[in-house]
Amino acid sequence: MLVNGSPGNLISIRDRGLLYGDGVFRTLRVANGAPLHWPLHYQKLLRDCAALGIACPDFSCLSAELDGLLQHHPDAVFKLIVTRGSGARGYAPDSCVAPTHLWDVAPVPVYPEHWAVYGVALHLCALSLGHQPRLAGIKHLNRLENVLAAAEFAGSDAAEGLLLDDRGRVIEGTRSNIFLISNNRLITPDLSRCGVAGVARDRVMAAAGKTGMPVEVREVALDELSAADEVFLTNSVFGLWPVARFEQKCWGSFDGVAKLRTALDVE
Amino acid sequence: MLVNGSPGNLISIRDRGLLYGDGVFRTLRVANGAPLHWPLHYQKLLRDCAALGIACPDFSCLSAELDGLLQHHPDAVFKLIVTRGSGARGYAPDSCVAPTHLWDVAPVPVYPEHWAVYGVALHLCALSLGHQPRLAGIKHLNRLENVLAAAEFAGSDAAEGLLLDDRGRVIEGTRSNIFLISNNRLITPDLSRCGVAGVARDRVMAAAGKTGMPVEVREVALDELSAADEVFLTNSVFGLWPVARFEQKCWGSFDGVAKLRTALDVE
Repeated sequence: MLVNGSPGNLISIRDRGLLYGDGVFRTLRVANGAPLHWPLHYQKLLRDCAALGIACPDFSCLSAELDGLLQHHPDAVFKLIVTRGSGARGYAPDSCVAPTHLWDVAPVPVYPEHWAVYGVALHLCALSLGHQPRLAGIKHLNRLENVLAAAEFAGSDAAEGLLLDDRGRVIEGTRSNIFLISNNRLITPDLSRCGVAGVARDRVMAAAGKTGMPVEVREVALDELSAADEVFLTNSVFGLWPVARFEQKCWGSFDGVAKLRTALDVE
Repeated sequence: MLVNGSPGNLISIRDRGLLYGDGVFRTLRVANGAPLHWPLHYQKLLRDCAALGIACPDFSCLSAELDGLLQHHPDAVFKLIVTRGSGARGYAPDSCVAPTHLWDVAPVPVYPEHWAVYGVALHLCALSLGHQPRLAGIKHLNRLENVLAAAEFAGSDAAEGLLLDDRGRVIEGTRSNIFLISNNRLITPDLSRCGVAGVARDRVMAAAGKTGMPVEVREVALDELSAADEVFLTNSVFGLWPVARFEQKCWGSFDGVAKLRTALDVE
């Protein structure tokens, strides 16, 4: 682990990342010594920092730290956190001069192999996401909604939980984005009121575009899910998981997912 | 500062307080060697921990730590944070066994003396609070809304910012609760959808009850504010601040606030 470029695994109890969740993060997969889609992750980091008014560390600085970590951890999951740092007491951020940035390394999680092939069970979470347009899309450190939602299906056979907003519209998984394929169109929820817009989501939309598949980013009603030809989840660690079961509905054929996977592989 | 009972000012970068804002806190005033309303703060801490499923440290354990700190800091502001601690990677909280708790000490903030007597200017924040009934009322560590709202009036002559919900109803200040006095009735917003229900808010309602003043906890429309006879803000550090100015409206007489202050003093 690195904290502000130096080996360490501790931060100040006055860091606003702890006090207020005042920061952002990225989770990236490292495979065979290469950080997958690192420039895309940096772009998101930059955008998310800007949305909160946090000074984002330079690409070159973070890339150098990343290179150092890769030597020792060629296959892993890296977490990068950037917080606003420490400042005067109170919510106002104006006294903060130096952001904190840190890297943590975790082993690649091992999932049942059949999940990626035959699909996963998706749990419908009772918790619904509140609307906050000022924070929507940002991968920030205020993640209590995700924690409470994840607690709902921990220990069950569901691999992921589906989050709706407080008007019952489909938004995302607790740690993934969601896509529907209907009549050869790719559909994913609009995330302008809540949710996190991940790198894998962007990549899937771009890959669909290249294959000539129309992409719709819009409000998605819950009943559209069960009516879809295919449903799948994406994140930067597990890639793509088809959904095999949601409520009473089962799916067994994932031709659209296979096509998108191929398009992603030849990027 | 104390971290899990030992002197220190650092926590693990794997603590879920940092990773997800997965924890709660209290801010209490210490005056002449006494922690003001500590049992009330502990009650709130217990309730907030229970709402998130975090094991709250014992009253006796925290009180003993508090006593130790009081010796060295008889007049100060103490912050107590309880997080879910560290566990396996991911949002699900089930692998966490030991919560983290820590104390930090800050000097008593110095405000202009006339604020408590002649009142403060209140800024109307553009940011509106999202609804999340599962988190409403809880003093948790997901405070990015407060940070963004506080940035709006930092450096202005306003002492506090007013937060509305996304339907335009009055909810709270960025670091305080708000009350209206209209026709000798005490009115404060319902906090079942968003907002933080502070100890000072409970104390003011109890004090009003003792003086025979009817108390209403309900939805409050923005135009009720300007129409009120008096408006005031409360928190555990500054106590009560009358509002002297909000938008085009000014107030100069605070008899109701004075009466409530007296009732609070003779508790």
